[in-house]
Amino acid sequence: MIKLKYYPHDLKFSEVFAVSSNARTSTEVIYVELEYQGNTGYGEASFPPYMKEKRDDNLLYLSKLNFGAFNSPFQLHEIYHYLDSISDENTPAKAAIDIALHDLMGKVSGLPVNKLLGLESNKYIYTSFTIGIGEDDFILRQLNKAKEFKTIKVKLGGDILYNKHAIEFIQSNSNQNIGVDFNGGLPNKDIAIDMMHWLAKKNILYIEQPLPVALEKDYIFLKAESPLDIYGDESIQNVKDILYKRELFDGVNIKLMKCGGISKAYEQAIVAQSLGLKTMLGCMAEGSCAVSAAANLASMFDRVDLDGHLMMANDFFEGVMIMDGELKLRRLKPTGIEIDDDKNRK
Amino acid sequence: MIKLKYYPHDLKFSEVFAVSSNARTSTEVIYVELEYQGNTGYGEASFPPYMKEKRDDNLLYLSKLNFGAFNSPFQLHEIYHYLDSISDENTPAKAAIDIALHDLMGKVSGLPVNKLLGLESNKYIYTSFTIGIGEDDFILRQLNKAKEFKTIKVKLGGDILYNKHAIEFIQSNSNQNIGVDFNGGLPNKDIAIDMMHWLAKKNILYIEQPLPVALEKDYIFLKAESPLDIYGDESIQNVKDILYKRELFDGVNIKLMKCGGISKAYEQAIVAQSLGLKTMLGCMAEGSCAVSAAANLASMFDRVDLDGHLMMANDFFEGVMIMDGELKLRRLKPTGIEIDDDKNRK
Repeated sequence: MIKLKYYPHDLKFSEVFAVSSNARTSTEVIYVELEYQGNTGYGEASFPPYMKEKRDDNLLYLSKLNFGAFNSPFQLHEIYHYLDSISDENTPAKAAIDIALHDLMGKVSGLPVNKLLGLESNKYIYTSFTIGIGEDDFILRQLNKAKEFKTIKVKLGGDILYNKHAIEFIQSNSNQNIGVDFNGGLPNKDIAIDMMHWLAKKNILYIEQPLPVALEKDYIFLKAESPLDIYGDESIQNVKDILYKRELFDGVNIKLMKCGGISKAYEQAIVAQSLGLKTMLGCMAEGSCAVSAAANLASMFDRVDLDGHLMMANDFFEGVMIMDGELKLRRLKPTGIEIDDDKNRK
Repeated sequence: MIKLKYYPHDLKFSEVFAVSSNARTSTEVIYVELEYQGNTGYGEASFPPYMKEKRDDNLLYLSKLNFGAFNSPFQLHEIYHYLDSISDENTPAKAAIDIALHDLMGKVSGLPVNKLLGLESNKYIYTSFTIGIGEDDFILRQLNKAKEFKTIKVKLGGDILYNKHAIEFIQSNSNQNIGVDFNGGLPNKDIAIDMMHWLAKKNILYIEQPLPVALEKDYIFLKAESPLDIYGDESIQNVKDILYKRELFDGVNIKLMKCGGISKAYEQAIVAQSLGLKTMLGCMAEGSCAVSAAANLASMFDRVDLDGHLMMANDFFEGVMIMDGELKLRRLKPTGIEIDDDKNRK
């Protein structure tokens, strides 16, 4: 028998986190626990404000689930079909369940999850460090935190003066490689093309989602013009997006919360790579539970951006460690931090 | 350290096996052994005469492999990248290695391979039984062997009189469900459309590869006209075929030897299902080693046709059992039958 518990939690950022669309001091998550034969599998769903998935809807979805028909976490595929049969949506809640099932599979078998997936690796796997939008003193503090990382992902937006200043300011204070994420913040394709050429001269590695989803058809022009790889993120939510939008991007940013967990991220990576797309493994601003789950997949991706948990002041778990910018997988465990809304535990 | 051994073997059929393109009394295989920390993982490559892959080429390919850079079977993905780096082709040899790696992963972890894949299931999974082309007395003997099976897959070809006679003869001697496999044997689309309508009236479940690969473009017409699901087999060799030929078929027949093993069959099933295609899990005329490996994936497929090993008189392994037409997974083990060409062991 598999037994489900879940409870909402608010993760607090150490510093305000700003991207092109918003700035915030905390982010909403749901923690999930699946109990099976004396083991507990942990999962996490996170809800950045730009996603259409909302925490209340996902709590409602979780309240509808009943695992009575299943007697083992190794029935992962059949359990996932059941999750999909209850609703087409609620990918964060499904991700949390899928993460918890993998955690259980690992605990029951005694194997690390990356081994279960055939993804053990001798390679060094490095993650980038993300720097949000902010004043010079904020950027300097972030650069100080980013010292051990080989690559920095810089958040930019629609303000071209800020964009150019931020890149030049970072490059005057650091020799690290830089990727740029606009979160769809540029207003139109002409400005995007100018910006791309300017960034290419600055030896930027790649750009991510320069135009919003509403201007998606213009990516055809961008891709034809661009000297840099363009990764889709907000535009790529599921396998069908990868299939039908593959001409628009050079690569895709795959995240557990968008696609619905480890199983689905694995599947999306396979589909994207079959189509000749590059793949980036990303995360939301979220805790160690979700980020550690994603880290199990890291060796199959071209780029890894798994630093969401580093921003958190009250992470409820400890899992993947980052040493000299390199991911070190560890079995997930609770930190013992008291959940502030423990009364909400169901 | 992982150590590779391999040796050719000829599997003998209990009775001559005929399909639209050929008839034969034996089929060529290669057995593979991977040794790792006191465990042996077994794999099998099979070479039906219609495939362009030939055994000698695959033996040559295996002779080039060196697993010195890898220290665990759980590095499956990285090992597979290495296999692909040596050659784009040789999918049967790659399938054999992949099967052996999964066998090792199962043995080292103590878990059945279907559990490792998250494919444990409470469902009953039934395979069809295949009846080749032959005289009435042959068909009667096959029907006798097929008694416990819920579905029969009947091999037909370009001889319309034979086709109609075989279906009517089988239906006069059995009430079982029937699927039909032409192995590309029908000569043109007009004949194929007539044949399909006739088969639909006979309540056939589905048809497989009615036209040869050379006439593939005509499948557009067939699919539009057909009252029956059309599965592609010879036309579907890899993920790109699934992506680019998805408008031609209602479903695809996925086989370990065509795609390169358990990992790749899993991936192809995911891609096909993402595209809305039905999926059949098939096999070649091959031994229990390869068929048992495929059986681990069975619960994720719409149709299962895993009976190749039942035709063999000198199967070198025992693995999956079939009871009342239902697949029963078991850990693979050698039967102890002496390999007749043991001197070829490398």
